[in-house]
Amino acid sequence: MTDFGSDNMGTAAMEGVISTIDNELICTNLTHRIAPFDTWQASGALMYVVPFWPAGTVFVSVVDPGVGTPRRASVAKLKNGCYVVTPDNGTLTHMFYKVGIEAIREIDENVNRLKGTEGTSIFHGRDLFAYCAGKLAAGVIDFEGVGPEYPVSEVVLHDTLFNPNVQSGCAEGVITEAMKHFGNLNTNIPIEAFNAAGFSFGDMVHVTISHEGKAYFDQDVLYQKSFGFVGKGEPIVFNGSMLYVGIALNQGHFTNTYAIGDGESWKVRITKA
Amino acid sequence: MTDFGSDNMGTAAMEGVISTIDNELICTNLTHRIAPFDTWQASGALMYVVPFWPAGTVFVSVVDPGVGTPRRASVAKLKNGCYVVTPDNGTLTHMFYKVGIEAIREIDENVNRLKGTEGTSIFHGRDLFAYCAGKLAAGVIDFEGVGPEYPVSEVVLHDTLFNPNVQSGCAEGVITEAMKHFGNLNTNIPIEAFNAAGFSFGDMVHVTISHEGKAYFDQDVLYQKSFGFVGKGEPIVFNGSMLYVGIALNQGHFTNTYAIGDGESWKVRITKA
Amino acid sequence: MTDFGSDNMGTAAMEGVISTIDNELICTNLTHRIAPFDTWQASGALMYVVPFWPAGTVFVSVVDPGVGTPRRASVAKLKNGCYVVTPDNGTLTHMFYKVGIEAIREIDENVNRLKGTEGTSIFHGRDLFAYCAGKLAAGVIDFEGVGPEYPVSEVVLHDTLFNPNVQSGCAEGVITEAMKHFGNLNTNIPIEAFNAAGFSFGDMVHVTISHEGKAYFDQDVLYQKSFGFVGKGEPIVFNGSMLYVGIALNQGHFTNTYAIGDGESWKVRITKA
Repeated sequence: MTDFGSDNMGTAAMEGVISTIDNELICTNLTHRIAPFDTWQASGALMYVVPFWPAGTVFVSVVDPGVGTPRRASVAKLKNGCYVVTPDNGTLTHMFYKVGIEAIREIDENVNRLKGTEGTSIFHGRDLFAYCAGKLAAGVIDFEGVGPEYPVSEVVLHDTLFNPNVQSGCAEGVITEAMKHFGNLNTNIPIEAFNAAGFSFGDMVHVTISHEGKAYFDQDVLYQKSFGFVGKGEPIVFNGSMLYVGIALNQGHFTNTYAIGDGESWKVRITKA
Repeated sequence: MTDFGSDNMGTAAMEGVISTIDNELICTNLTHRIAPFDTWQASGALMYVVPFWPAGTVFVSVVDPGVGTPRRASVAKLKNGCYVVTPDNGTLTHMFYKVGIEAIREIDENVNRLKGTEGTSIFHGRDLFAYCAGKLAAGVIDFEGVGPEYPVSEVVLHDTLFNPNVQSGCAEGVITEAMKHFGNLNTNIPIEAFNAAGFSFGDMVHVTISHEGKAYFDQDVLYQKSFGFVGKGEPIVFNGSMLYVGIALNQGHFTNTYAIGDGESWKVRITKA
Repeated sequence: MTDFGSDNMGTAAMEGVISTIDNELICTNLTHRIAPFDTWQASGALMYVVPFWPAGTVFVSVVDPGVGTPRRASVAKLKNGCYVVTPDNGTLTHMFYKVGIEAIREIDENVNRLKGTEGTSIFHGRDLFAYCAGKLAAGVIDFEGVGPEYPVSEVVLHDTLFNPNVQSGCAEGVITEAMKHFGNLNTNIPIEAFNAAGFSFGDMVHVTISHEGKAYFDQDVLYQKSFGFVGKGEPIVFNGSMLYVGIALNQGHFTNTYAIGDGESWKVRITKA
């Protein structure tokens, strides 16, 4: 996973470095279209995939605005048995809070840097992260071989998101992601809490989405398990794939239609209709 | 193959589910840029690749506007020995007519759904299709293990395309695809019929493309085997890679230059010049 | 690597052809977003990855404006032990000058063309290049089995780039690439020559970028090893990942901000500030 885009050879050079270590390793491209330098988005994106891969998987994340500066280049060992090779710059926030980091080590450049690349400092994705990840995945080094351990408490974290406020018949949270492709909205309201607050599939609920005091959406909406329970283009509240409340238009683009953004300042409030 | 786009982690979660079943399975991404919800385009896209993969290949197609509704989630066994895992929503049209479907089974969610995902109904690509495909590809289940069989006659099909009318010296058909990337046009006129109607490489032919009675292109054009037989930017009629008549501008973009669309209402007529 | 884009099934058909030969071969997609028909860009892109892949790797490059015309379809054996399967149309320029071509052979269509595709001449990527590359990678044929050898001196080459002029305290060159994604600039000034001319990390240098006599950028800039040594949005001169002088804005987009292009007419001059 990187923020390199898909119109260039950056990630192909990284895969070459890995293949040179062991050409039987299987590399999968997660996405290379993280917004440039957006370590918060990178952190959320890892959360979306890490739980679905087998223990032992080595994830490489290169969203690295500080490449070549003294920020740490690290390998985190997760409590689920996977590894994340990444600059320690906030990319590990979701892993820290939701998966758990068992231990973290800084990559020793003397041992785990691709030979011949010492002269350049702008492509650690190729020279450091891919190379070290390849060695780890191939068993050339073990986790101890990455470099010196440091306390998990020193992992760089983003501030956590605004906590949702879910009470009987009323759920308040924020839009964590206004998706570009399908245009669905994700919120930080856990579906379990939402249901415990008295909402059930089939209910009509009232949804208000606001930003800096202005309402961008303010309607009654059906709460159901998927999009096709309402007509084409109509809004729906549903249970998202990561078990948080989602909002969408059936085969439409909620984000664009209502000009919705995401982050802490985009508030959502759901009550019984 | 999906309509998820490539700027998010949806397909990477699907690949994780497959790797968790058997991490030696090789996953290939066909394309994730099918137009959202366009099951007709998905069907045509499968036709473009299925004939070139070996028997036993398991294709997963997730273009699924009805996810979470009672539409069937299915696995089709093709007459060429491949499988297609897909919602049964029209995506199998080309397979039905041109490759042949030997049998089809509905996925039994009780057996072939990823454990722990029962609470969400919007990401069957991950929870049902990838999971079942992975089990089938890995040999954890055989085709019978997918779930109950139902008659191939019940497969959901799109209406077939307008049939071409090819007679001596005159071929009439429709633009089946006005390609976005290179801007070439595909038609539904089989090259074999076209040649049998008396057209040969080297002939000048007259091409008329019209929509709702208005001509968008009406010129004499060379019929040759590839683009480079005419000057840069000049039009050419050629034999397409799937053996249908194609129309293009050499190193130009026919679709944009002449504002051509596709579908039954976009008619093409080719006569001797 | 192709110029097919990622919104269609072209490259997936190519991968199918390769899998049909040997379904244990590992295919990696380098990029499919080379600018259409741009063999010079294709040549530079190969230079960016070939040095990082192991000997024996078979690269397939399909940027082929002359498909179906008498241009040669070839396999080059590089001096580093890799192969490049490509139309011989300028794509091999960087390989010729910088990696070295040991020998080159024209693909014998009678032997190394996918059976059943003789009727179409517009998709050699699938029918000729992928098929021949798959056979070579799988060991079905050896290099001699590709087809007849021809002299390396006949390889089609682009004119070489304007040579940089680096003297004590002054380096003059051209912008070889104004990158679209991150917006960084690459130049043809080797870092070794630059440093030998008396420039060192930490120096302020004066950078002038001009096109047809007009200066597009004319400022003092810090020369350091990576972006993060200047504030966000500020310019920096650095050592690029291929060991040529690079120019960028830290977390900004130099190309768009200053409307920079690339090629021989975009000149860069760096002196001591």
